[in-house]
Amino acid sequence: MEFHYPNGKKFSPKNKTVKKAQEKSFSHGKRGMTLEEDLNETNDYYVETGKAVIHKKPVPVQIVTVDYPKRSAAVIKEAYFKQASTTDYNGVYNGYYIDFEAKETRNRTSFPLQNFHQHQLDHMQQVTKQSGIAFVIIRFSMTEEIYLLPYERLQYFWERMQSGGRKSMKKEEIEESGYFIPLGLQPRIDYLKIIDHLLEELLKERN
Amino acid sequence: MEFHYPNGKKFSPKNKTVKKAQEKSFSHGKRGMTLEEDLNETNDYYVETGKAVIHKKPVPVQIVTVDYPKRSAAVIKEAYFKQASTTDYNGVYNGYYIDFEAKETRNRTSFPLQNFHQHQLDHMQQVTKQSGIAFVIIRFSMTEEIYLLPYERLQYFWERMQSGGRKSMKKEEIEESGYFIPLGLQPRIDYLKIIDHLLEELLKERN
Repeated sequence: MEFHYPNGKKFSPKNKTVKKAQEKSFSHGKRGMTLEEDLNETNDYYVETGKAVIHKKPVPVQIVTVDYPKRSAAVIKEAYFKQASTTDYNGVYNGYYIDFEAKETRNRTSFPLQNFHQHQLDHMQQVTKQSGIAFVIIRFSMTEEIYLLPYERLQYFWERMQSGGRKSMKKEEIEESGYFIPLGLQPRIDYLKIIDHLLEELLKERN
Repeated sequence: MEFHYPNGKKFSPKNKTVKKAQEKSFSHGKRGMTLEEDLNETNDYYVETGKAVIHKKPVPVQIVTVDYPKRSAAVIKEAYFKQASTTDYNGVYNGYYIDFEAKETRNRTSFPLQNFHQHQLDHMQQVTKQSGIAFVIIRFSMTEEIYLLPYERLQYFWERMQSGGRKSMKKEEIEESGYFIPLGLQPRIDYLKIIDHLLEELLKERN
């Protein structure tokens, strides 16, 4: 349980000595910083403007030892990263339950499915069954291209892998199945615009 | 930021030496254990039976130092408890966004409002504006009585306090404004039954 980063990658202990760093660099490693920061800024903007209430969940940590020094804050002295049992982001938008995971890759032509985990797929399926809106936001970091991929599409590629198919989604496949999100100034990653579009499509289907 | 427990109480450093303990005992202190465990069991039951997807968020921790030992898990060597910026539980139930905080008291005749924080009230208000369902679950631990109190009722008592009124809710007030949840075997705390009732009331109002 505790020896994987939230992104499912094993730690590469390049530096065996004790490191000082900010919290953010632990949550997804260096690669994840920009996407996470942009999404946090976006979510802050949504909250401030009253558009939605969506937050990133804290990084799950298994606490083992805590020190209670006199007259100062309790210090956690031993703890381990735990794998998250759900996705990283959730909240509410105009009555709709929103739930997503955000990942990026340095690959240019495909997106590795190992960025996701079975239990996250299971969680997104449960959410979908409860009429929540589940998706992933993926970023090709070399070209700064961001896509929203609804859960059902991810599920298709996931099942293809499980039945012996490729372990990644081709970039063309993502372009076809997903929705490109242009980078903006404020909000940085306006994914709710895509959700509006998906909801409109859903309404059309029903009529 | 980092020198309060999630329940807003200062640490009482009774034991100045390093303590070993399970994660749960840190999240709300000893008092909160039973309610949290019962709610986790309840939420597990809801997920397993496909009734809802509601989870407790991880305890927010500010990580300062991480050690990367050779061939074993990364160890967090210095970290601090942060105050949560939202409520502890959220998820989706049959298309509805659910958001709540759970607290208990050893008092017998009233429930101290200091168990909650302004930013949690703000969060619940934002959720309500987005048509989410926000509430608190409170427990009188000496008598094992549990109540669900919708956000709007809590807000009333909160504002009464802010305008100079009492700093707690009388038990009679909770009995009148809230909904008693009888302890069950499975699920332990069937709060969704109360939500069903509230949704029915809401529908009646609209017709």
